[in-house]
Amino acid sequence: MTLKTSVFIAASLDGFIARENGDLDWLTGQPSGDPDEDYGYSSFIDTVDVLVMGRHTYEKVRSFDIWPYQDLHVVVLSTQKPEVPDELKKNVEVRNLSPRDVVKKLSDEGFQHAYIDGGRTLSQFLNAGLLDELIITRIPVLIGNGIPLFEKIDQDIHLVHEESASFDNGFVQSRYRIKSAAG
Amino acid sequence: MTLKTSVFIAASLDGFIARENGDLDWLTGQPSGDPDEDYGYSSFIDTVDVLVMGRHTYEKVRSFDIWPYQDLHVVVLSTQKPEVPDELKKNVEVRNLSPRDVVKKLSDEGFQHAYIDGGRTLSQFLNAGLLDELIITRIPVLIGNGIPLFEKIDQDIHLVHEESASFDNGFVQSRYRIKSAAG
Repeated sequence: MTLKTSVFIAASLDGFIARENGDLDWLTGQPSGDPDEDYGYSSFIDTVDVLVMGRHTYEKVRSFDIWPYQDLHVVVLSTQKPEVPDELKKNVEVRNLSPRDVVKKLSDEGFQHAYIDGGRTLSQFLNAGLLDELIITRIPVLIGNGIPLFEKIDQDIHLVHEESASFDNGFVQSRYRIKSAAG
Repeated sequence: MTLKTSVFIAASLDGFIARENGDLDWLTGQPSGDPDEDYGYSSFIDTVDVLVMGRHTYEKVRSFDIWPYQDLHVVVLSTQKPEVPDELKKNVEVRNLSPRDVVKKLSDEGFQHAYIDGGRTLSQFLNAGLLDELIITRIPVLIGNGIPLFEKIDQDIHLVHEESASFDNGFVQSRYRIKSAAG
């Protein structure tokens, strides 16, 4: 398989990616020194040609005023059939596939670099040995409860630290390669 | 109160400070590039004149072959009465005190800088607004389960990032000041 799989995600210092109800106020309310600073997001997303997410993340993103992924191809992994409105049908497909099967399908279709999003989905890819890269941005706040960054990791997973950088507003971003990745 | 309170602790990338049974194999088994590298521990401990820990951490440290704190004064916070052997009685006192009361007592006794150790104890200090500094070293491994670094944080706690550094073996250390600290 030639598909590279990456996660690019922000988490509170105590390891949550959202509050229990999905709220991101603790993240969006953070001070930003430079209004043009995007913490490497646009240079990351420019290298990605497909986005894989779970149903919860899809429904959260759908609740935003605008669909933020423009023409990027999106695969929603779900055993259910969440609604895809007409204007998104060109780019969004819903599939009931395992991480292994979606990696195979996207590889076969010629995709090169998948952005894996959402806590449950990223943990499924980690457990399956199918995540290559983890870019995590730690926000300097403890929120106590919420949706965990890592969920049901079922064995030790060793990572290789590649680089870290900190931003003026206190965000600390680290990039890791995952040793066990079979992708 | 003039006592400064600091935490210096290692955690897995998924936020555990030990396995469920207290084991640190995931930490002690990490490769170390330089055998003399101590990740800033000795320069930190040199600034400390008292160590505050809970009973669980005390009993874990007691299980080691040697008592690692030499002549450093240690306060064990406990509602029970864990055994203190004769050779440690000079340095170790067991007290049933709240974070606020132990900070007051140590300030009154002239201590300057307390090292707060153990997940439950550090979270109690955080919740009481009595922690000034958090130095956390992230180990590049996911262990899935264990004793959490942060436990029952009961409100948002904002931190100020002061500096981060990474080591050749992939440990990433960040130092934060806590905004709400009343200490």
